[in-house]
Amino acid sequence: MQKKIPESNNPWRNARIKPAAPRSTEPYAARTPPQEPAKPPAAQRRGEEVRVYGRNACLAVFAKRPDDVRKVYLTEARLADFKPVLAWCVKQRIGYRVVENDDLDRLTETQHHEGVCFEVRKSPTLSLRALLQDIPKNSAALLIWLDGVGNPHNVGALLRSAANFGARAAILPAGSPVLPGAAMRVAEGGAEAVPLAQAPTSEDGFALLHEAGFAIAATVPRAGEDLYTTELPSRLVLILGAEGEGMSAELIRRANLRLTIPGTGAVESLNVSASAAVLFAEYWRQHR
Amino acid sequence: MQKKIPESNNPWRNARIKPAAPRSTEPYAARTPPQEPAKPPAAQRRGEEVRVYGRNACLAVFAKRPDDVRKVYLTEARLADFKPVLAWCVKQRIGYRVVENDDLDRLTETQHHEGVCFEVRKSPTLSLRALLQDIPKNSAALLIWLDGVGNPHNVGALLRSAANFGARAAILPAGSPVLPGAAMRVAEGGAEAVPLAQAPTSEDGFALLHEAGFAIAATVPRAGEDLYTTELPSRLVLILGAEGEGMSAELIRRANLRLTIPGTGAVESLNVSASAAVLFAEYWRQHR
Repeated sequence: MQKKIPESNNPWRNARIKPAAPRSTEPYAARTPPQEPAKPPAAQRRGEEVRVYGRNACLAVFAKRPDDVRKVYLTEARLADFKPVLAWCVKQRIGYRVVENDDLDRLTETQHHEGVCFEVRKSPTLSLRALLQDIPKNSAALLIWLDGVGNPHNVGALLRSAANFGARAAILPAGSPVLPGAAMRVAEGGAEAVPLAQAPTSEDGFALLHEAGFAIAATVPRAGEDLYTTELPSRLVLILGAEGEGMSAELIRRANLRLTIPGTGAVESLNVSASAAVLFAEYWRQHR
Repeated sequence: MQKKIPESNNPWRNARIKPAAPRSTEPYAARTPPQEPAKPPAAQRRGEEVRVYGRNACLAVFAKRPDDVRKVYLTEARLADFKPVLAWCVKQRIGYRVVENDDLDRLTETQHHEGVCFEVRKSPTLSLRALLQDIPKNSAALLIWLDGVGNPHNVGALLRSAANFGARAAILPAGSPVLPGAAMRVAEGGAEAVPLAQAPTSEDGFALLHEAGFAIAATVPRAGEDLYTTELPSRLVLILGAEGEGMSAELIRRANLRLTIPGTGAVESLNVSASAAVLFAEYWRQHR
């Protein structure tokens, strides 16, 4: 039998479920901050909270930073998986609510919430300088530099692979907004394992990275060094470009190395998240 | 200036655009054949035609098997890319129509058609026996066995990577329906490079494959042989399982080899299309 946590212990049991802020249809990179709902909670108004959904994404937040969990919404079917979370909510007097599937559809603005949504304090975005201070000198380390990879599903898939293959962090161009909920769900918890750092301009960013002993590799669909005949530097930044137009010519020019995944030529290129998985895996093979 | 092909040469210029058959919301593997529209063309009624959309998917069909193209719908913006196709249509008296974006939305039941849709004669699905007769004895060859990989986007992404890394064919369980249009679009032409073969039961299929000198490897999220310390057989069948539940226990038990992609453990597993890319890439690295 499912043992329910008594509703009377829930300090938040009568709270109203607020609808999500209108979602932009623009891709991730191009997004402006969502319009504010009529009366958002103060923390959300200040951009300090985000909605995380998906079973593994929520469990990873709870495992990594339970103190950042502000509210929990879940369906009855999810209670078993999230029992430790609810017990902790009761102890910490964090609000939780058992809701219907439809409520979660509205709250997350998707049907892919897997029966659970957390309101979570946003993790602070590191500066590149702070990130580099955290990485022991001369140790092997893989960093990822995302140059306008826009589709949240691709960002999420890429972070899931990055977490699997031990990438140390992902560097986003300055001014990148917070990771969208869809990317966190698709990352299946990987977003908690790969911190996001915000780069200064590419010029300053590259200088900081070089100073810290990193080589910078751009990934190009053709005419770069063959991934499988190249010894990858142990301190490596992989720049992954946008789908479609690819990455900026300036980044390619300024990189120390241009890498190409070989192939038959039967398709023009791989999908950015497939490329990413192949590149991270090869780094793992050479340097684990 | 865009030189237009005179409309009077188009034998099909007054044809009515028929809506797509109702689309099932079931995943690919579980789908039953779509319900028939009121008056489908005879060929479509007999299941001999499919709608292919997406720029690269359509160009790949035209490059590989132009005689299978039955009708062409495209937007004005796509005319430049498809000029050779239209010239060929005029010569062969194949119908084409320049349509609005909205027409393509209705025809393909998606907004991701990239301005072009072909009605195409279905490629015949090979039997496994016929496929194996086509592969030279003792040569290196990679085959893929899909065990209920349901999501059309995953199937498409997987075929794109398979085409890039030279997989010889993909084997589908008996009774699998034709590849959905979304999978062909996401494959970006890869579906034309990787023929589909239909397996008999796994027992018969495995016997045929063993007889032809293939080793069969199941891919498992943990406790298999480490991909990077394993010498992959040069004639190899990789079984890729469904997302979620993974592949059937029977297939795992009957395989000659169980392979695991190593990793940090920070996420439970990789997405099936990321796993596929990593596995195909490693086969390529060892056997190209």
